[in-house]
Amino acid sequence: MKVTSASRIVATRILGLDPGLRITGFGVIDKLGSQLRYVASGCIRTRDGELPGRLKTLLDGVREVVATYTPDQAAVEKVFVNVNPQSTLLLGQARGAVICGAVACDLPVHEYTALQVKQAVVGYGKANKEQVQHMVQRLLALDSSPSPDAADALACAICHAHGGEGMTGGIGGRRRAGRILVMPERR
Amino acid sequence: MKVTSASRIVATRILGLDPGLRITGFGVIDKLGSQLRYVASGCIRTRDGELPGRLKTLLDGVREVVATYTPDQAAVEKVFVNVNPQSTLLLGQARGAVICGAVACDLPVHEYTALQVKQAVVGYGKANKEQVQHMVQRLLALDSSPSPDAADALACAICHAHGGEGMTGGIGGRRRAGRILVMPERR
Repeated sequence: MKVTSASRIVATRILGLDPGLRITGFGVIDKLGSQLRYVASGCIRTRDGELPGRLKTLLDGVREVVATYTPDQAAVEKVFVNVNPQSTLLLGQARGAVICGAVACDLPVHEYTALQVKQAVVGYGKANKEQVQHMVQRLLALDSSPSPDAADALACAICHAHGGEGMTGGIGGRRRAGRILVMPERR
Repeated sequence: MKVTSASRIVATRILGLDPGLRITGFGVIDKLGSQLRYVASGCIRTRDGELPGRLKTLLDGVREVVATYTPDQAAVEKVFVNVNPQSTLLLGQARGAVICGAVACDLPVHEYTALQVKQAVVGYGKANKEQVQHMVQRLLALDSSPSPDAADALACAICHAHGGEGMTGGIGGRRRAGRILVMPERR
């Protein structure tokens, strides 16, 4: 969705996705120049059952999110390789379905590692979940902390908002000795 | 596609899929009562490049096959868990995309292990690729041996043709002490 205001600021709408077979988090933000604006976030949940049905739930869920919020771009977190190969396979299939939901809507999909996401959002690649949630809440000026799954998806969208125009761009972030410092603007 | 002939034999069209990120094999057969008929087979190939684009190629490829041959049901081989976790993850994502291609067309998808497929086609769970190719050629009365990827996909479709109505059904197969013996009818 391209919105041109009187001041000629063009908004880019970014869909962040955090794939999982049981719970896939999503978060939608708008990037207006150097500002980020929260649009929506939530989860797509699948019930226990046969794998094809669960993958269809993820595929249809992502397509519904895209149809509802009409993002311009998608950002997906690269998943961990689990110690359990069977879990890795299941997670891979879920991730395949989630990406297919986006590409089926002709959305360009960008991938980021957890390290990239954490560096972009917290400024520290080994940040824990609470730190990510806290910074997502601050960066998007949310009244309350988003759920962990939605937070990871929003973090991925924020990472793309930075990375899409260089990791030093975005909401006041700047690079110092290879580390990104994020200084959210107060509203 | 349901075809009712004068003799009231209803054909069920089955799409077999053998997922892979680089090459996904497909095979389409018709099951008419106790007979199997070859319809088509081939491969969907993806080029090196970004993962989302490759998954889109698989998704669109499967959807195109479904649109072209209008199968009633799909059968997908369960993939091996690779010793390399990164390969397992990639294969999982490819498999997710392939299954999504089928479920996006509202096709019921059934899953079979390699053991089930080999037992159904060769009658021996540890059969090698050449044995599978040979039996697929015989069972479908093909003039020449199908390519390995197409053979595996056709084998999966044949397995479903048997299994869909009990593993003792189909083209002369019968169960003896838990092992399935397949005796193809000569044409």
